[in-house]
This record gives sequence, structure tokens and C-alpha cells, in this order.
Amino acid sequence: MLEFSSRLLEQAVNEFASLPGIGRKTALRLVMHLLRKDSAEVERFGESIIRLKKEIRYCKICNNISDTETCEICNDKRRDDSTICIVENIRDVIAIENTGQYRGLYHVLGGVISPLEGIGPGDLSINHLVDKVAGGTVREVIFALPTTMEGDTTNFFLYKKIHGHNVRITTLSRGVAIGDELEYTDEITLGRSIVNRTPWQAI
Amino acid sequence: MLEFSSRLLEQAVNEFASLPGIGRKTALRLVMHLLRKDSAEVERFGESIIRLKKEIRYCKICNNISDTETCEICNDKRRDDSTICIVENIRDVIAIENTGQYRGLYHVLGGVISPLEGIGPGDLSINHLVDKVAGGTVREVIFALPTTMEGDTTNFFLYKKIHGHNVRITTLSRGVAIGDELEYTDEITLGRSIVNRTPWQAI
Repeated sequence: MLEFSSRLLEQAVNEFASLPGIGRKTALRLVMHLLRKDSAEVERFGESIIRLKKEIRYCKICNNISDTETCEICNDKRRDDSTICIVENIRDVIAIENTGQYRGLYHVLGGVISPLEGIGPGDLSINHLVDKVAGGTVREVIFALPTTMEGDTTNFFLYKKIHGHNVRITTLSRGVAIGDELEYTDEITLGRSIVNRTPWQAI
Repeated sequence: MLEFSSRLLEQAVNEFASLPGIGRKTALRLVMHLLRKDSAEVERFGESIIRLKKEIRYCKICNNISDTETCEICNDKRRDDSTICIVENIRDVIAIENTGQYRGLYHVLGGVISPLEGIGPGDLSINHLVDKVAGGTVREVIFALPTTMEGDTTNFFLYKKIHGHNVRITTLSRGVAIGDELEYTDEITLGRSIVNRTPWQAI
């Protein structure tokens, strides 16, 4: 337990140490770093955190994080609104966007069904998704939830809700990661990559 | 480069990523953690950083970080004001305080003399220290600066300034750390621990 001669310092260190993966020594290092900066810079830091929490919204259409009522992705007319990719959280949206390979829209569930953690279908933005699919413009729904029991349960629940609506339901391809060596790939992934083998293409 | 659908989110992530040792992925994780907290908690976090920078002071006597004009250590009448331990920064004060073995006062230099980084004696709180020693109540000065060329230079500079004032000048004992194995101790430390060997005591 570190002891401080200043309550202000102690409070700031405690706040940083409450973040995941940051211990008290690291917190002190970060706070000391801030103390060496200009007042204006430190104020900008503090304000940006407060503003983020106060002013952030969630897109009315896809539940993605947004500065406005509907997010930039949903507002983008060049994107294909007949395809919806279902993800657990906004970090997954950022990850897929960074590939530059997807031009459809998203639907952020905000979690997966997990009876152990007390998360039921009612806690996720599922009804909203079903309404969207029932609307008729959606032709494909891509399941991109984690490959865990909870993810599979959620996929199955969603499937039951939307499979009557004449949409194609797909999921991310699974297999050996590019650059990975076969001997270090887990058996389930390697097994699936053989079963789901694809035609070889000369590049 | 991560792309975000929200400017607010991007700003907050950039601020966290400007801290030492925090990359953009970690910054995003920390910001997402804050977003899941109550508004009140997030506001407290932001405010504590802003207040720290705005309201923090440096003790008039020892230059330690403080909420008031003089710090808790200098104000503590039970402490021995005839002994002053000279340290580079407040993290060293915290480290020594945590041992619970020191009851004297401190003097925080705010750095060490480093011509390469353009830090001269004028940039450190040295004159103030010399005045204190000249005052007459100080009987011992402990050099606890880092054992680097810069630390040694600073020690020598301080020695020249204060050795006429009839004070005992000491330094931290150096040697093999408790629990360390001899074979992994560097030669300079091990050599010094033999030269400066102390009488064995049965505990």
C-alpha cells in the first residue's frame, strides 16, 4: 500500500488504479506523467472523459456507439443495407471495419445470452433486430458472435426468431489463421478447416 | 490505425493512448470500461485529474507534492528536523516512506544535473536546500539520488555547496538486495558489499 502526502494525488492514483490491468504503481506513473504536462492538456484529458460519458449516444438503428442519433455507418448511403452483421460489442465493429472488407451494416447486440451471468434475451437489443429483419429489406444476416457456448446459444435463439423471414443466414468462416503453423493450431479449428476446405486459387 | 464511428470516443482513446506504456488497443479497452460505469463515477475520474493539476502545490520547505503550503511530512512535529534526505522526485519520497524506517525530513530536488538533457543546477531546487543547511538546525544530510553519472555529479555539486556547514553527509548503503542470490548480483554491487561489509548480528 503506497502512502501519499497529498489527498489530491491519492485520489487521482486511486481513480487510475480502478481501471482494468492498472496497478497502483502504474497509476502513480501515469499521474506523474500528467502532472508534468500543461494545465490545458490535463484539462483536455479530464474533459474528454467526462464529455464522452455525458454526450455519447447509441445509434437508434444498429446500437453502435455514436455522436449523433444514428451512426456514421448507418447514415452512409453507399453501404449495402440488405446485409446485417450481428456482433457482440462495438470493439467487434471496429475490428471488422478495420479489415476494409465489409460494406454492409451492423447490429450491436450489447452482449450474448448468458444464464450464468444473468443475461437473458431481454437484456440484449434482439427485438429491434427482429423488427428490422421483418421489415423486408434485409436479405442476409451474418452471425459474428464469439464461438463460445453463450455465442452459440445466442445464434440459435436469433435463428429461431428470424429464420422464417426469407433471409440468408451466414457466419464467419473459421479455419487456420493466415501465417499460423498447423502444428500449433488447435484441433477443433484445424478439423473444421479440413471439413470446410475451399478451392485453391492461384493468386 | 483504429477507426471509430464516434469523434468523442476517438478523442478519449487518443488521450489515454498519449500516456506512457498505453497503446491504442489498451486505451480503447480502458475507455470502454469507463463507458460501462455510472456517469457519477466517470465524472469523479475526470474531475480528479483536472483538480489534481489545478490545485496541487509543492511544499515550500521540501518541494514535495502537497495539498497545502507545506506538506504533511514537514508539518509533522514528531519528525526529526535535523536530518534531511535528498531525493530526485516524489516517487522516491513515497518509496522511502513506505519502508517506515525514516523519521527525518526530505528535500525533493526535482531532477538531477544532466548536461545532456540540458538540466543545470539552476533548474533544481538547490539554493533553497543550501539555505536550509546554512540555517543551522540540520545535522545530517543523506544523499539518496540515483547511482548514475548524473546522480554522482549532483552529489558532488551538493557536497561542494554544503560541506562547510558542519553537517554529516551520508548516503544509502549499497549491497546485495535481501533475498538476492550472489551469482546473479552485478559485480560492482557485490564488490562494494564486500568492501563495505558490516558486523554480523544474530537476530
